[in-house]
Amino acid sequence: MSGIAQRHRPHVVVVGGGFAGLWATRALASADVRITLVDRRNHHLFQPLLYQVATAGLSAPDIAAPLRHILRRQRNVEVRLGEVVGLDAASRTVALADGDALHYDQLLLASGATHAYFGHDDWAAHAPGLKTLDDALAIRRRLLLAFERAEATDDPAERAAWLNFAVVGGGPTGVELAGTLAEIARHTLRDEFRRIDPADARVRLIEAGPRVLASFPESLSAKARAQLERLGVEVVTGAPVESIDAAGYVLRGVDGATTRVDARTVLWAAGVAASPLGALLDAPRDRAGRVQVAADLSVPGHPEIFVAGDLAGVQLDGRAVPGVAPAAKQMGAHVAAAIRARLAGRAAPAFRYRDFGNLATIGRMAAVVDLHGFKLSGLLAWWFWLAAHVFFLIGFRNRIIVLVNWAWAYWSYQRHARIILDPPDDDD
Amino acid sequence: MSGIAQRHRPHVVVVGGGFAGLWATRALASADVRITLVDRRNHHLFQPLLYQVATAGLSAPDIAAPLRHILRRQRNVEVRLGEVVGLDAASRTVALADGDALHYDQLLLASGATHAYFGHDDWAAHAPGLKTLDDALAIRRRLLLAFERAEATDDPAERAAWLNFAVVGGGPTGVELAGTLAEIARHTLRDEFRRIDPADARVRLIEAGPRVLASFPESLSAKARAQLERLGVEVVTGAPVESIDAAGYVLRGVDGATTRVDARTVLWAAGVAASPLGALLDAPRDRAGRVQVAADLSVPGHPEIFVAGDLAGVQLDGRAVPGVAPAAKQMGAHVAAAIRARLAGRAAPAFRYRDFGNLATIGRMAAVVDLHGFKLSGLLAWWFWLAAHVFFLIGFRNRIIVLVNWAWAYWSYQRHARIILDPPDDDD
Repeated sequence: MSGIAQRHRPHVVVVGGGFAGLWATRALASADVRITLVDRRNHHLFQPLLYQVATAGLSAPDIAAPLRHILRRQRNVEVRLGEVVGLDAASRTVALADGDALHYDQLLLASGATHAYFGHDDWAAHAPGLKTLDDALAIRRRLLLAFERAEATDDPAERAAWLNFAVVGGGPTGVELAGTLAEIARHTLRDEFRRIDPADARVRLIEAGPRVLASFPESLSAKARAQLERLGVEVVTGAPVESIDAAGYVLRGVDGATTRVDARTVLWAAGVAASPLGALLDAPRDRAGRVQVAADLSVPGHPEIFVAGDLAGVQLDGRAVPGVAPAAKQMGAHVAAAIRARLAGRAAPAFRYRDFGNLATIGRMAAVVDLHGFKLSGLLAWWFWLAAHVFFLIGFRNRIIVLVNWAWAYWSYQRHARIILDPPDDDD
Repeated sequence: MSGIAQRHRPHVVVVGGGFAGLWATRALASADVRITLVDRRNHHLFQPLLYQVATAGLSAPDIAAPLRHILRRQRNVEVRLGEVVGLDAASRTVALADGDALHYDQLLLASGATHAYFGHDDWAAHAPGLKTLDDALAIRRRLLLAFERAEATDDPAERAAWLNFAVVGGGPTGVELAGTLAEIARHTLRDEFRRIDPADARVRLIEAGPRVLASFPESLSAKARAQLERLGVEVVTGAPVESIDAAGYVLRGVDGATTRVDARTVLWAAGVAASPLGALLDAPRDRAGRVQVAADLSVPGHPEIFVAGDLAGVQLDGRAVPGVAPAAKQMGAHVAAAIRARLAGRAAPAFRYRDFGNLATIGRMAAVVDLHGFKLSGLLAWWFWLAAHVFFLIGFRNRIIVLVNWAWAYWSYQRHARIILDPPDDDD
């Protein structure tokens, strides 16, 4: 090794290769640091399209790219497949599950969020959530098997229970899942079954609050509801789920009365909690587990530790920065700038969030868009949503494949990834 | 129901939606029968490209299509997801794992083949074989994790063991896997690691017999060997594997001496056995478990039961019909013709096999083709192989996607599906 390589360059450890971690890493490409990016998975995931994998419109590799491949030309980065299990801020050390330890000079924790079942962890087995590719494939398998089970049984009650689908949570993920599920039942599976009519499936979207897409203006929530209903989704608001088990769920209606519904497929899109890694820090966290960071996104008392993305709880002008991809990217880029400033002996600037607006897709040719008061809904919003998402897939060469798949799915109503892996057991 | 629908149409039960079962089903489209196609999986698999899924060049849905979708317009077919566990020839009943039973008038057993470890079933855990999409994804995961483990360790012996790959069996599958693995190590992963050079990986193809691709003329076997070596594969012939365990394998050399090799990744492409469903028949089977059928592919003593595809052992003019896709399709079509003949009161004709030739791909721009003495090897053979395979993907709309993927992989050396699902455990 040359003498230059031997001298100490600050070591930046980035935990998590999602939007925040990856954007921070890339923004440090020309910095005089060495970076270790640690992730439990070998890929970066384009999470906004994850519901398309769950509903068999896209393959898993269409929306994921190996972190090593994305970063192969950035010579100051080492990618490490591994799980962080410990953090010692005093010795500036991160412990990995395989026994290794990484010493850091600057640390970015960006391990994202997971599902939360509001204290009902037993619901997880019956109502899977959607955060990872494994989650998406598990949901895909459940959806496809439900129609198979309905076709195989002769018992009308059991058949109805298999054709009863519920999505809990009326945020963007719940709306996407319910809208696409209705399309699958009404169009994709047409002609494929002989004993059932898949269009008989009931798809219900359940929201405990008063309206779906609560982060949008009320008029767009109403439009989203109308579009969902046009797609065949039954929308229930103001009705919290009381319990979920293997056979169905119990709903508390607006009148306070509870109803039991037999439904074999319940999907969870209601609660999000920050990654448990936040608990490794000696820092205050909010109810959802998000670390309450300082203005520069560092942890109070630990200027060498930053938190970004869904793990960070950031309040700006009295409003929480939302847990969306653009916010995570901006936080990641900010942390890179803060680290550069520190290394140059300057104070780190405060994080500013640039809100470009809010968009959500609902289903075929249906979406809502809110750009600071400029509102769109329906077909035009859907085209806007599509263009934005294809544009942001840049960096993945999979863009072409995703476009071809989408064009095909659009014209044919077909979803090419309807493959059940793992031969199903009888107790499925 | 109308009176016409009520009258008894003969019930044909087809077990297995591979080439034999699917081609038989389609050839009965206009026959006055009702058909139930039973498969444990919901998809037909284009098995000749399975090695591409294992080596991350294609996604699982690229080479698989839901059976229901393929057959949606063929109204005399019902597709049943289920596993056959019993057969009672006396009552003409097939039992399914979920407790249901299907009565048949004519039965086609076409459940294919699986791996065989020649009595060493304990090797299965250490040396996975390649028959299903699940197998392919498991192999993909192992290959990708091996490079990750090599990068993560500081122990030179362990690193070498992780970079030591062995493929057991020099038939077409073994040759494809070894050739592609060498390409991944030498080209695909270039620049992606910081501590190891993936090109240091040793890829060894081990064949117990005297040459690779034994079903080809000797001159093409020699050319295949030379092409493999040019791709960086070490070819060992005349050397049976004595044992396989978690840490490596023992090889018996031509001189009879045994050598232990530390290798963490061993793939099995040596043995094939017919599906265990053949044992449900009261019929003679050969050493590999193939049912010895009559000239019309029916089971001796049971003219209403046919066997086709890899489960059938057919000798014609003293030669065994090979276990390849064209043979399975021809057998499937023949069984459909035999059933039509029976229903019309005619005798079923004898099966004739039309051998179009033999082709095997080796790796990037390397293949061998034998068309009844007209021999090709190298780049020209590779183009021939590619054209033939893309052509036979007809019926899958995935053809376009597969072509786009291939074109991309060809020019960039990239393999887009390098995604490890399931977060790896530490004991992986």
